[in-house]
Amino acid sequence: MQQRMKHWGWGFEDKPETPPLVVRNVESYFSSLFGIREFKPVPIPDLNEAIIGAPRLNVPHRFSGFCTTDKIERIRHAVGRSFLDYATIYSNRYDYAPDVVAFVRSEEDIQEIYNWAVQVRAAVIPFGGGTSTSGGVEPIVGPDFAGVIAVDMRRFNRILETDHVSQSARMQAGATGNEIEAALKTNGYSLRHYPQSLQHSTLGGWIATRSAGHFATLFTRIDDYVQNMRVVTPAGVIETRRMPPDGAGPDPDRLFMGSEGGLGIITEAWMRIQKRPRFRASIAVFFDDFLKGCEAIRVIAQSGLNPSNLRIIDAEEARVNHVSARNQSILFLGFESADHAVVGQMDRALEICADHGGQFDREVLGHPDSNRQAEQGRWRDIFVETGYYREVTTPRNIIYGIMETSITWDKFPTVYNSVMSAVQAAIKEATGRPGSLSCRFSYVYPDGPAPYWSFYCLGSRDEMKQQWKHVKTAATNEFLKHGGSVTHHTSIGRDNMLWYEKQTDPLFRKSLAATRKVFDPAGIMNPGVIYPSTR
Amino acid sequence: MQQRMKHWGWGFEDKPETPPLVVRNVESYFSSLFGIREFKPVPIPDLNEAIIGAPRLNVPHRFSGFCTTDKIERIRHAVGRSFLDYATIYSNRYDYAPDVVAFVRSEEDIQEIYNWAVQVRAAVIPFGGGTSTSGGVEPIVGPDFAGVIAVDMRRFNRILETDHVSQSARMQAGATGNEIEAALKTNGYSLRHYPQSLQHSTLGGWIATRSAGHFATLFTRIDDYVQNMRVVTPAGVIETRRMPPDGAGPDPDRLFMGSEGGLGIITEAWMRIQKRPRFRASIAVFFDDFLKGCEAIRVIAQSGLNPSNLRIIDAEEARVNHVSARNQSILFLGFESADHAVVGQMDRALEICADHGGQFDREVLGHPDSNRQAEQGRWRDIFVETGYYREVTTPRNIIYGIMETSITWDKFPTVYNSVMSAVQAAIKEATGRPGSLSCRFSYVYPDGPAPYWSFYCLGSRDEMKQQWKHVKTAATNEFLKHGGSVTHHTSIGRDNMLWYEKQTDPLFRKSLAATRKVFDPAGIMNPGVIYPSTR
Repeated sequence: MQQRMKHWGWGFEDKPETPPLVVRNVESYFSSLFGIREFKPVPIPDLNEAIIGAPRLNVPHRFSGFCTTDKIERIRHAVGRSFLDYATIYSNRYDYAPDVVAFVRSEEDIQEIYNWAVQVRAAVIPFGGGTSTSGGVEPIVGPDFAGVIAVDMRRFNRILETDHVSQSARMQAGATGNEIEAALKTNGYSLRHYPQSLQHSTLGGWIATRSAGHFATLFTRIDDYVQNMRVVTPAGVIETRRMPPDGAGPDPDRLFMGSEGGLGIITEAWMRIQKRPRFRASIAVFFDDFLKGCEAIRVIAQSGLNPSNLRIIDAEEARVNHVSARNQSILFLGFESADHAVVGQMDRALEICADHGGQFDREVLGHPDSNRQAEQGRWRDIFVETGYYREVTTPRNIIYGIMETSITWDKFPTVYNSVMSAVQAAIKEATGRPGSLSCRFSYVYPDGPAPYWSFYCLGSRDEMKQQWKHVKTAATNEFLKHGGSVTHHTSIGRDNMLWYEKQTDPLFRKSLAATRKVFDPAGIMNPGVIYPSTR
Repeated sequence: MQQRMKHWGWGFEDKPETPPLVVRNVESYFSSLFGIREFKPVPIPDLNEAIIGAPRLNVPHRFSGFCTTDKIERIRHAVGRSFLDYATIYSNRYDYAPDVVAFVRSEEDIQEIYNWAVQVRAAVIPFGGGTSTSGGVEPIVGPDFAGVIAVDMRRFNRILETDHVSQSARMQAGATGNEIEAALKTNGYSLRHYPQSLQHSTLGGWIATRSAGHFATLFTRIDDYVQNMRVVTPAGVIETRRMPPDGAGPDPDRLFMGSEGGLGIITEAWMRIQKRPRFRASIAVFFDDFLKGCEAIRVIAQSGLNPSNLRIIDAEEARVNHVSARNQSILFLGFESADHAVVGQMDRALEICADHGGQFDREVLGHPDSNRQAEQGRWRDIFVETGYYREVTTPRNIIYGIMETSITWDKFPTVYNSVMSAVQAAIKEATGRPGSLSCRFSYVYPDGPAPYWSFYCLGSRDEMKQQWKHVKTAATNEFLKHGGSVTHHTSIGRDNMLWYEKQTDPLFRKSLAATRKVFDPAGIMNPGVIYPSTR
């Protein structure tokens, strides 16, 4: 039996404790910020006491081998891990839940579910790791549907084939990051796609939401690693051609990248994999001024050095996460290679940092595990644990939200300043007191960065969702006003649809609807996400 | 007034001579191969004597400022520069020609043309540089249309804006490669997109056909340099958002990349540009065995060294083009950077070459213009003149055809061998004697190369088109059989449609039709290319 995710938070059920590091960070920082003397231990929501309506669908006898209406399973598939989902989890009341959970075993099972769904007017929501941070699996589908079926892909979790010559592997879409990396490691390979959700999230979810991973520059997003895919749609199975990049007409894979479950379910893909790095160098560079550090990043991003890591966190981000008390911004710079030494590139990138006032201690480069030392090590440790934050913050009424965009360099300083002040004001409006707001770069390109903001504020149990929305809106309006995207890599889901509609051209949305109509004529697939309704 | 392309070949009218290098190569090599004692001078087809039907459309008075039915203009817009086009040019008989040529001055002109076309049931064919090598502008549109209007984009040829911070520029889509590079050079920038057609082909044509340029690895295709675009479609104008890569839903730009004029006309785009390189190193590496050289390329392509040049030509390609008489394959390896020295990468790549039996003379690396020396210089010189070959070969009844694909490394040796023997056999079947067949790599990726074959055979004036088709079919069938693409970067056009239909999934083609219906409800745009008919 596969490990299951804790229903009340992050990580696995068989190791349910929140990492002490996370609890300590949250409690020490926010007790002083919000003047709370002591955080009380919070009880885990008891699923047996959870409030949830009766299932509105009856599982046909022929599906009893893989479908269930069990209350606990329905709850487990009612939420992802967005802030809104956490607020739901800790309210222990599920106004929206799937009526049936289908643990499909084969493509035929998926097709049978589609046929049944069309018959009974049910919506179908693909479910991978259940880690959506934007309402991608939340079953709010509107009054047109008589019920909701969650299709859980966990049984599609194998690596099927490895091609050592072309360095690629065929994988099932329900495989989690951990499963993929464990399987590839036996041959010395890695997909090197490490989203924060690695242990839970799945290949299919990554492709459908255009997830971004390990590399800060160059090939940042899963898009770049897909050779082909197989998608089961209500209109039939489509398998794109397995090839290196080619230029024959519009790229069929692009139809499904970013489709967020609205056209069908990805069942497998051939992915480009790579040899694990043997050469590594990693260093932290300190800047008194965040924007000065960003400028260094711009020059490095335009240099063609293509570091694997090129990210900056501001002083507040360093403080909240107990990475450093130096009250400086920290630029994390790293190079890696399976083939050749990376000293030359590192030297040149550090020269650029120094030109921009960056301070660093080269000594760490002598260390074989330079990426695990000092500030870098602390950031790395907490970064992979960030998924645990909300199980500590939410029950303590601390709202933890994130906003991210993609924006050209010329506009970045303006957007940065306007988001910082708009969000700080919005936090005060929503909660009556200041909160914490920090910025970092998650990815960078020659023509612009993908900046990422985190905010924490003290809300009140009953108004948390509205308070979150008020703050999120303030930031996203600034993104839209200045020409940025609603998201760089955390998907649209239901939480961002309002803004996605503003971001996209009406004619483009008409073409989305037309595409949907081809693959999903009855409009049953993940309704409310990406595609305009075609019902 | 802008320079115009020679109607009977390549290059500009005001400098009409074929480069002597090309004439010498063709005559010396093929006279011995085909046993022809002397090639006679060939007269230039006289356009006044060309056979062409009367125009079937009358230009409305309000369009007289920019539309014409002039015979010479109609002929100039009747062909691209594919082999079939050259055969037409030298037959001096145009069975298919646009009835009207519209030299549009504004987006409003384009929209007016669309409205008129719908009214009179005419097809609209966008015309950039007229360099299509696959029948992209050839006005064979079927019996559903009462006429054809070619929309010439030459008046959209300006660079409108440069953003030095984000290193990007807004350009009009009718600008040619020469015009773009000349304008960018004044600020020290380059698009670094150098297809063989650079002097004639246009930005809009590149994007619509997913053209590939200078870089052999990494970001090879124009796709990677597009920040946004503006497209005038019959359903209205659509402008995508100008941003670095983002992940909000399916990428709208991807609708138009590869659309080959079937959805509308691209009028402008923000493009990522770059500083011109200051550091360069370039060398030729010789291999006794072509496939051994390919293997070295595979290892370099998977090393993360990302050279700007990583191409190989086989001994026959070297012979035909008078690059070398060593009877060896030649791997061209180059690195370039605007920021840093490239010595380290070159050293490592040469180490890999040596491991695979590559022979080279490092001395050339001491030369500041190493890319212009010896074999490299000769290949570079002839490469940019290749466009002139067909004006020498075609009137001499020599069929010069090309085929290219994209294929994973595991399948490449099989495809290579099967294409080599199938094409040699097909040449003999079609023409009764052997021809010349050579292979090179045009682009390479970690998971596979884009191999490119050139063939020359002696046809007969009246059967050339059929003979060409017989050979092309033999190769393309092998591509399809083994899982390759019909094209890597020379587009589908009309010449490849038969195979494109075999390559693509019927469900995907249904979605193409649905997309077409949104942007071009009357189905007037470049009918017969990419999109299934929606009329």
